[in-house]
Amino acid sequence: MGDSNNKSERNASEEVSRIVEQSKELQESATTLIIQSSQEETSLRQRALALDSNIKSLRLFIGSSVKKGILDPKDAEKLVEELSRASYTLSEGDASAFLPSKSYGRFLRMFLGPINVYATRKDVQLKVKEEYNNFRDRTAYLFLIFPSLLLVLRSCVWNGCFPALPVQIYQAWLLFLYTGLALRENILRVNGSDIRPWWIYHHYFAMLMALISLTWEIEKQPDCSQKQKGIQLFLKWAIMQGIAMLLQNRYQRQRLYTRIALGKARRMDVVWGETAGVEGQIWLLYPILFILQAFEAYVGLLLLKTAMVGVVSEWQVVTCGLLLIIMAVGNFTNTVQTLVSKSRVKVKAKLKKSRSKSDLLQGSS
Amino acid sequence: MGDSNNKSERNASEEVSRIVEQSKELQESATTLIIQSSQEETSLRQRALALDSNIKSLRLFIGSSVKKGILDPKDAEKLVEELSRASYTLSEGDASAFLPSKSYGRFLRMFLGPINVYATRKDVQLKVKEEYNNFRDRTAYLFLIFPSLLLVLRSCVWNGCFPALPVQIYQAWLLFLYTGLALRENILRVNGSDIRPWWIYHHYFAMLMALISLTWEIEKQPDCSQKQKGIQLFLKWAIMQGIAMLLQNRYQRQRLYTRIALGKARRMDVVWGETAGVEGQIWLLYPILFILQAFEAYVGLLLLKTAMVGVVSEWQVVTCGLLLIIMAVGNFTNTVQTLVSKSRVKVKAKLKKSRSKSDLLQGSS
Repeated sequence: MGDSNNKSERNASEEVSRIVEQSKELQESATTLIIQSSQEETSLRQRALALDSNIKSLRLFIGSSVKKGILDPKDAEKLVEELSRASYTLSEGDASAFLPSKSYGRFLRMFLGPINVYATRKDVQLKVKEEYNNFRDRTAYLFLIFPSLLLVLRSCVWNGCFPALPVQIYQAWLLFLYTGLALRENILRVNGSDIRPWWIYHHYFAMLMALISLTWEIEKQPDCSQKQKGIQLFLKWAIMQGIAMLLQNRYQRQRLYTRIALGKARRMDVVWGETAGVEGQIWLLYPILFILQAFEAYVGLLLLKTAMVGVVSEWQVVTCGLLLIIMAVGNFTNTVQTLVSKSRVKVKAKLKKSRSKSDLLQGSS
Repeated sequence: MGDSNNKSERNASEEVSRIVEQSKELQESATTLIIQSSQEETSLRQRALALDSNIKSLRLFIGSSVKKGILDPKDAEKLVEELSRASYTLSEGDASAFLPSKSYGRFLRMFLGPINVYATRKDVQLKVKEEYNNFRDRTAYLFLIFPSLLLVLRSCVWNGCFPALPVQIYQAWLLFLYTGLALRENILRVNGSDIRPWWIYHHYFAMLMALISLTWEIEKQPDCSQKQKGIQLFLKWAIMQGIAMLLQNRYQRQRLYTRIALGKARRMDVVWGETAGVEGQIWLLYPILFILQAFEAYVGLLLLKTAMVGVVSEWQVVTCGLLLIIMAVGNFTNTVQTLVSKSRVKVKAKLKKSRSKSDLLQGSS
């Protein structure tokens, strides 16, 4: 018995020293790997940076050579195209992990501190993008259902007057939603998405509006229906917004997949408010977007009018009105800009096509 | 002239093909590095996991051997200590980057989506921790200044009655602050901090309270001073909280550095509400913490009383009162638990000391 005890003790202590040994070895391998890969990363980073600046300066050189007349424009165009392809390889392939990522911006640092949200691996980046799309899909349904429910309950149960709590829950949800969207879009930007800055600012304004609307007393007014007119309109606008979001999400996915297939888009691209690529869809979506923006501005003006006439003189009404108008104008401007740049691209593509045709004809003649 | 044009064209096209070549090479090196290091990472991950589970099962084996009487308790203790050291090397050294990180939790996923917030490099983790401490320092000063300013203005400028807007700005700031803290602490947890879950839940409750208090109408009451009594008390409590936070931050840093120096703590540890290690500080900080918690509960009860008596019957008053009481009780329980576990550690340390002394005596006799 004593012997077997000794044996078990010896076994245990042998096992322990084996584990201590293993943990030291593992520690060493880990240190080696981390040092080694960070060295290799640094060298790749330097190469990527140098290449990136070379491409830029060569582009400038070609441009100035064409202007000075020492380079044939047609040849220059071919060279620039080759450069674009190289630049695309650099910014879209695995090497992109070693290009300096875009700066983080105050918003992310304010909420998260200096944590790294850049995903080195492409598949993780795509997962983030996919999840963002799914989040927007879920959001769009809630955007449709939540205000509809409030409006139905108002006329069926609440005798034409909203109680404060359900509306406030809706406003708190909006605040959470816009904060989440702003955070996610900032993260996508860090990961290389080319989302237009306006759509992020738009969410900052929307956050501010949700916050302000929370402090807005809507009950206990002698004439509630007069005061709640703005809220009613706002809810109707939200329903329309929900429908537009659903359409947009569908179209954008299709468009993104088409553009990726054509090699025009990067997978991380996000386009709020701008969309379509399939010809027919433009005629459905853009009118809806413009109507939405007009309606948004109308609700804003109506709120301002209420404050001017003196029905309600709270500062919240004026501020929310102004914010709605700012957002409507910004959305409109950005949608138009997208439309213009898109049609420019189309014109260019057409020109190119006809030119390459004439090149072919010249070649065959 | 035509000749020099040709030359410049040749130069440009040579330069372009060189760049295209370089971009291909860079792309290949990047792919190789990513594949290679991900393979090595996988292998290290497997080794770390295996070692971790070996340590756990060996610990169980030693424990059961002692119970069965086939292992001497003293020898077993030594073995367990060695295992702890191996486990510490594993979880604190570079190898820890390859242990599976803690799950993310709903809160982070809700706001950020499935993005990786785990920092592989220790120095980045420490930077995050340092920045969190700095954030808390800045916060503590604002926690002191903001409510003090409101209280001073109330008695000097506002004739004893708060206007709504400044209080609401303060509440919005609280909401932002608690959201930021909750996000940052979740991130620290992912990065290996052993922060007690309660302190994170505490910030969720505080977020909820800030949100609810935003919807709370404080103006336009016939008797504002009666209604605003709760807010006054809350602001005074916030000032005390600010002082306590400043003390805590100072003490915790000292304690953390001491504990790191003694090899007892990991650098990522965060301790809200629990603190001190330097003997004398315990007698200052714990009383302050307990007084704060009692005051928090008192404000909560006062709010409930206001609602019961019928001065204000809004649901916000009741809910905020309940939340304050829940937070006070939770804080108290967790502070006491920390105190108990700390004194247990101390007793153990003392026992060990006296035992090793008697070991020495036995050895010398």
